[in-house]
Amino acid sequence: MPVDPSTYAELIRVAHALADTARPVTLRHFRSAALTSENKMAGGFDPVTIADRDAETAMRAILAQERPNDAILGEEHGHKAGTSGLTWVLDPIDGTRGYISGTPTWGVLIAVSDDSGPLFGIIDQPYIAERFLGGFGQSNVIGPMGSAALKCRAARSLSQATVVTTFPEVGTKDEGRAFHAVAGKANLTRYGMDCYGYAMLAAGQIDLVIEAGLNPYDIQAPIAVIEAAGGIVTDWSGGPAHAGGRAIAAANPEVHAEALDIINETING
Amino acid sequence: MPVDPSTYAELIRVAHALADTARPVTLRHFRSAALTSENKMAGGFDPVTIADRDAETAMRAILAQERPNDAILGEEHGHKAGTSGLTWVLDPIDGTRGYISGTPTWGVLIAVSDDSGPLFGIIDQPYIAERFLGGFGQSNVIGPMGSAALKCRAARSLSQATVVTTFPEVGTKDEGRAFHAVAGKANLTRYGMDCYGYAMLAAGQIDLVIEAGLNPYDIQAPIAVIEAAGGIVTDWSGGPAHAGGRAIAAANPEVHAEALDIINETING
Repeated sequence: MPVDPSTYAELIRVAHALADTARPVTLRHFRSAALTSENKMAGGFDPVTIADRDAETAMRAILAQERPNDAILGEEHGHKAGTSGLTWVLDPIDGTRGYISGTPTWGVLIAVSDDSGPLFGIIDQPYIAERFLGGFGQSNVIGPMGSAALKCRAARSLSQATVVTTFPEVGTKDEGRAFHAVAGKANLTRYGMDCYGYAMLAAGQIDLVIEAGLNPYDIQAPIAVIEAAGGIVTDWSGGPAHAGGRAIAAANPEVHAEALDIINETING
Repeated sequence: MPVDPSTYAELIRVAHALADTARPVTLRHFRSAALTSENKMAGGFDPVTIADRDAETAMRAILAQERPNDAILGEEHGHKAGTSGLTWVLDPIDGTRGYISGTPTWGVLIAVSDDSGPLFGIIDQPYIAERFLGGFGQSNVIGPMGSAALKCRAARSLSQATVVTTFPEVGTKDEGRAFHAVAGKANLTRYGMDCYGYAMLAAGQIDLVIEAGLNPYDIQAPIAVIEAAGGIVTDWSGGPAHAGGRAIAAANPEVHAEALDIINETING
């Protein structure tokens, strides 16, 4: 059942309220000397800060008040069922490794979704005080230089393009091989941007973000923001990406097709 | 001849004036859709923006007025001789590839140096409105969260440390091998930070920055800022780094020694 347009303004208002609430909570421990982290995965490196948990708790408190019938899927506190058909998908600190390195590349990811995928999303960078949002007819960045429309860049060939991913390793060995096959044909490859890479795609600054091993809460807000800015986000077979896994986000259908061809040749060839 | 302490305040004032002047000039074209770039090096990728040149021109105009007897070494407009024994070392946009990707990882680098190396330096990030400075008894960051002292982090072993460099390739093949020998023993490796990595080292957020192929104007401001924050910057043989080339910046002598041992074993072993 599609969302009644009369509800758009309400959902946008709540999404901003969630981001506003998360900002000071995430910043409370950012750049602190005593930042602690835990290993969530045995043997793996996945730091979770107190800020991460506290920010999700604060956002859930707002949803309990404002949208009690909506479901919630959050990175830190799991799934809460709902009855409205809408789900709030929350990643309070996407890019915890950026966070513990002091770089403002992490962000608060907020999406409101139905079964078809994300409808509206926010990528918020609290330290820069910069918010990228998209959906329900909106597509904007609000930040240090004021407010501006988001618009993905026009088509140029992969040989002129900038490709972004977070780590050179990109998922499994095969996935890494596919990524580097694309990156090897690009003009410029940049690493280390966490969710900020998706924001730069929506802002028309880069051409492609390619990632693997994603969770739904890593990608749903970026999908909403990028699609609203005219871009395209799919999995590596061209299907929906909102369930997570492998994602390719592109500024336009042309560079999306060019990169996807290379990925498929590498993986299946 | 050492600088007379009565001149410190004057030099600090001029350094801030240079950074203040460069900010709006660098931001005029940042994130613009029409950003143009040129290839300075045949076959290589080293974009120079109009902003880069204009910012250096604006800084040189201030120096002509305020410090006419000092020398200038700038990335864009070369060397101007002086008679005072002091040289202003300017990189108006360090990290042009970050700049053309829209990421606030680039910075304006300003150092005032004598024959022994940099005495005072500024790493300024105009988009975030964040300024890291060090030297003449000062060591501070002024940014979105106000003003705070800079202090490099205390010693922890390399296996717990975060290592940063701009590109996974790091210079020549041998230099890359040496970098990855260190990174392979670290807890976390992050890429893509341009000069912002040095700022994070001074801010106590990371442990090591390792780079190669540097010019003097890439490293002099970071040296001043990091040394003022208690860190150490040398070349890969432990000598002075202010002439450029290979640099290792470390939060403390312990992790510096541990990383330098690995580099030397890899290069000479």
